[in-house]
Amino acid sequence: MDFFKNRIRTVQELGFGSKEYKQSVRFLNPDGSVNVRRTGLGRFGNIDIYHWLISTTRTKLVMVIVIWYIAINMLFAALYFSIGPEHFGGLDGGPGALQHFFGLFFFSAQTITTLGYGHVYPIGNAASVAAAFESLLGLLSFAVATGVLYGRFSRPMAHVLYSKNILIAPYRDGQALMFRLANKKQSELIESEVKVSVTFNNPETRKREFYNLNLEIEKIHFLTLSWTIVHPLNEESPLFGFSNSDFVNTDIEFLILLKSINDTLSQNVYSRYSYKANDLVEGAKFKPLQQIADRKGRIIISVDHIHQFEKL
Amino acid sequence: MDFFKNRIRTVQELGFGSKEYKQSVRFLNPDGSVNVRRTGLGRFGNIDIYHWLISTTRTKLVMVIVIWYIAINMLFAALYFSIGPEHFGGLDGGPGALQHFFGLFFFSAQTITTLGYGHVYPIGNAASVAAAFESLLGLLSFAVATGVLYGRFSRPMAHVLYSKNILIAPYRDGQALMFRLANKKQSELIESEVKVSVTFNNPETRKREFYNLNLEIEKIHFLTLSWTIVHPLNEESPLFGFSNSDFVNTDIEFLILLKSINDTLSQNVYSRYSYKANDLVEGAKFKPLQQIADRKGRIIISVDHIHQFEKL
Amino acid sequence: MDFFKNRIRTVQELGFGSKEYKQSVRFLNPDGSVNVRRTGLGRFGNIDIYHWLISTTRTKLVMVIVIWYIAINMLFAALYFSIGPEHFGGLDGGPGALQHFFGLFFFSAQTITTLGYGHVYPIGNAASVAAAFESLLGLLSFAVATGVLYGRFSRPMAHVLYSKNILIAPYRDGQALMFRLANKKQSELIESEVKVSVTFNNPETRKREFYNLNLEIEKIHFLTLSWTIVHPLNEESPLFGFSNSDFVNTDIEFLILLKSINDTLSQNVYSRYSYKANDLVEGAKFKPLQQIADRKGRIIISVDHIHQFEKL
Amino acid sequence: MDFFKNRIRTVQELGFGSKEYKQSVRFLNPDGSVNVRRTGLGRFGNIDIYHWLISTTRTKLVMVIVIWYIAINMLFAALYFSIGPEHFGGLDGGPGALQHFFGLFFFSAQTITTLGYGHVYPIGNAASVAAAFESLLGLLSFAVATGVLYGRFSRPMAHVLYSKNILIAPYRDGQALMFRLANKKQSELIESEVKVSVTFNNPETRKREFYNLNLEIEKIHFLTLSWTIVHPLNEESPLFGFSNSDFVNTDIEFLILLKSINDTLSQNVYSRYSYKANDLVEGAKFKPLQQIADRKGRIIISVDHIHQFEKL
Repeated sequence: MDFFKNRIRTVQELGFGSKEYKQSVRFLNPDGSVNVRRTGLGRFGNIDIYHWLISTTRTKLVMVIVIWYIAINMLFAALYFSIGPEHFGGLDGGPGALQHFFGLFFFSAQTITTLGYGHVYPIGNAASVAAAFESLLGLLSFAVATGVLYGRFSRPMAHVLYSKNILIAPYRDGQALMFRLANKKQSELIESEVKVSVTFNNPETRKREFYNLNLEIEKIHFLTLSWTIVHPLNEESPLFGFSNSDFVNTDIEFLILLKSINDTLSQNVYSRYSYKANDLVEGAKFKPLQQIADRKGRIIISVDHIHQFEKL
Repeated sequence: MDFFKNRIRTVQELGFGSKEYKQSVRFLNPDGSVNVRRTGLGRFGNIDIYHWLISTTRTKLVMVIVIWYIAINMLFAALYFSIGPEHFGGLDGGPGALQHFFGLFFFSAQTITTLGYGHVYPIGNAASVAAAFESLLGLLSFAVATGVLYGRFSRPMAHVLYSKNILIAPYRDGQALMFRLANKKQSELIESEVKVSVTFNNPETRKREFYNLNLEIEKIHFLTLSWTIVHPLNEESPLFGFSNSDFVNTDIEFLILLKSINDTLSQNVYSRYSYKANDLVEGAKFKPLQQIADRKGRIIISVDHIHQFEKL
Repeated sequence: MDFFKNRIRTVQELGFGSKEYKQSVRFLNPDGSVNVRRTGLGRFGNIDIYHWLISTTRTKLVMVIVIWYIAINMLFAALYFSIGPEHFGGLDGGPGALQHFFGLFFFSAQTITTLGYGHVYPIGNAASVAAAFESLLGLLSFAVATGVLYGRFSRPMAHVLYSKNILIAPYRDGQALMFRLANKKQSELIESEVKVSVTFNNPETRKREFYNLNLEIEKIHFLTLSWTIVHPLNEESPLFGFSNSDFVNTDIEFLILLKSINDTLSQNVYSRYSYKANDLVEGAKFKPLQQIADRKGRIIISVDHIHQFEKL
Repeated sequence: MDFFKNRIRTVQELGFGSKEYKQSVRFLNPDGSVNVRRTGLGRFGNIDIYHWLISTTRTKLVMVIVIWYIAINMLFAALYFSIGPEHFGGLDGGPGALQHFFGLFFFSAQTITTLGYGHVYPIGNAASVAAAFESLLGLLSFAVATGVLYGRFSRPMAHVLYSKNILIAPYRDGQALMFRLANKKQSELIESEVKVSVTFNNPETRKREFYNLNLEIEKIHFLTLSWTIVHPLNEESPLFGFSNSDFVNTDIEFLILLKSINDTLSQNVYSRYSYKANDLVEGAKFKPLQQIADRKGRIIISVDHIHQFEKL
């Protein structure tokens, strides 16, 4: 790997440091999240509940809500039970304590949701105070839930599909790195800009180096069809002269940053992706994406064909 | 069409590709939406429910809500019915099963809205659990509805009226393409910027080409009156020398992109419009827009006169 | 006014046109709103209800809500009355129809707010359907109200106090136009930028002309104290050589545009202001704003002194 | 301090004025808030309730809500009491007025939360009107609460940890000012930009001067690890030649401004920090931050080690 010597290149500072790790590292996960864990701020020091609630999966959110609902009603049922079932009018006169507890659980549910059928109702000050507090808590909880649900829906996101592979394809007189991306959703992405960086271990300096890659086109007005991003592998490229084994040996990673505007929300959205050496295919080119126009002049494209390439 | 030869022009990449279609295509619909359909991501792969809910018509949204309300109450009425009408106190003792079902439907409606009159109420654990769950579901549903309604209202939009036609009008010593636009709403648009691109089939290259057009003024501070956008048809224009038939034969389309700031919301808003060859009128000019000042120094304009032009 | 001749100045396009009006006009109201009314889009064509609701005064909003609440309950009371008071259990057996109507009005209020005491309750299908529909309507209405109230609170606004007068004050070897502004609220405005334009009727061209004015400082990081904006009246100024009567005769207006970032909300905010000839004071300078530091190193300023100047 | 003479430096206008205060002042508090109080706008003139509610501590917000809840129910209980307890059906027939008041207090709580058990209910027009009004007020109040809670959660903030000290450390052939910062939360900060200004009393001019400091790197793509900000103390620095006592005597303050994008919310966030002379440590350097990679290629850093330095 003589090409590492005597080369003048401007190393970029991306915020990942320049330490060379003993094992293979991955700075960006394939889903675009940063692959770093921060410790030392206490057990919950780096957790931001709201951020977690709006970015977790739908299943987990539903579980959190259901568990919270059962737990809070259990808690208040226990409180009401300790006040005494006799302070609740209309309570089902079941045979034992358990049925009383169930009845108070349902009373709690009717209170926290402000449903309030009223066939069970509090008698006396202690029970009434507890119920008044529970209904306040209920309203505030559902205010939070409203905020979380709105936060999830309105969160600006770029739903971008990246080709599974990054290719070394013929380009003009030489070669170029190429990958494709497309908008997965029907809402438009406009004014899209892409930046591609590369990071690898430099065996000369024994440091991790970062470089921005020159692109043929960096910005387009509409991300309507697919967009093939092209980095020519010429003398100006920090990857000029890399062999296939160099890509693997230097633990290379391509970092893709896409900035765009979601047209429905008129807000900036960001997307990231990363390719490692095993995503790289040499001597291949992407198949043209099928794009036809129907009778009304509407253009139809098959987004799922974005991954298809052919070996040369 | 000799003018297509030997001309040096910089083709722009807008994101629509350069394929020449057999039939006439339209990249932007007159309402500004992009005229492309994405397939291949499964039946619902490219649908974003929230985006649909906040951008659909008011009528469709009301229909969705009403149908959802009837359906969910039917569902819970059926569930309550399967638990047994005898587990609901105060239920109207109608003559048959149907009236019981109706009664449970109304009980469901009173539960999901957390209305809870209480003249009908659940007896026993199964009925109480179902009702407790329904009221939770109701609150979450209305949390979603709150988010959707707020999302619709607060969605930043530019309500811009474009003149129906794009004119080739006299301009200084030569000619210029001109169209007008105006703000339809009373809330102000500030710091407006416009970009105009043109696309046509180049018979030489047999490709669809895209060019940005030079404009006399690209940015204004206030969009208070009408704004006439002017592209001089001089040597620098990619349309210099086009005849009327060229506009039709090359399947020309003018793509208008307007970026502005909604002053009430302090947010960026975007508007798009497109003209095809049949919107083009040669040898005409826009009539001046009526603008008078009242006694208090307030200026009054008639926005609907924006379309008016006179043949020369 | 010979100075209007033979002068080379770049007229700016601000979006107000160049028409000369017969009477004195005002492009910006003192509250910063644009003094233009758009007609010709039908009676309600240019009204945007949400924008009105979030930008109207608090008093008007409360009135709208209260009137809506009474009207909708009157409407449903009438509907329930037409269904028949006998279809509502527990209704106060008042002496006549009026008391029944009142009872149904209160039942409607308990339904639309999903309060549902239940001492009055619907009997039969017609009454139950109407009540189920009313409670749905109620929830959606309060969803809208939530959106409107949040929209009002979170609306990014710059609460900027402008000095009542614009002065012609001594500046270096000559004179300069000066006015002051300050942040009225405790939340900080950062990265503030100001642009000042001037418009007057040019007696030579018989057109309204617009010019941007050069400022000593256009941008500051913090708007913590007051900020005196200074336009030197030198040869480069379009106002160089104006006499006091010129300011009046040309119907001059100074248009101030302030862009800033509200630090609490991290959002852009905009403020506008306008001075007319009668706000102009020649041969005066602003008194320094009182600013002292307390024992803890905290700086205290008196914002209301911003208007104070002294004649020279 | 001869170095103050004959030096050409461009003073920056940051918005803090140039007055020299008799005592030591602090322009930015360590939490980043601006240390200025504005007076003269009346008692509540500069208070913005919404801004206070979304930026106050959680404890204070809970207290405000609870006190409001108790107060409003007291108020309505008094109103209902003045109407007369006999106008409320089902009221606990306690021995005296106090128990009636308590009963009406709980009825008020059930009304304002729209809980409405209905075991207590209004009789007659006066009581019904009051209850109808209270339930409207309740819904609007909880609409406000929803907005405040959402505003708090969704408020874009940069949770940045700054090193406790700013060091004068060896740098290349000379020295440099250095401090470190790191992201405290798991959500990413991207496209971070930092600006560092310095302010001190110039004994020559007897004014407070402000300068921007040149930085080695001003912008990074990811704030994943720690970021050491470096200002070389060379001839171009306004602090070149300062002795340790100069830092103290001139009442120096370093003002840090960080602009970043919160990746979860895709919104701009701002952070500020300030160092005074007593935070400055000469002849020290930061210890490298521990950063290891686990088996899966994930990098782990200890954020709390950011403060650690060693004396040289």
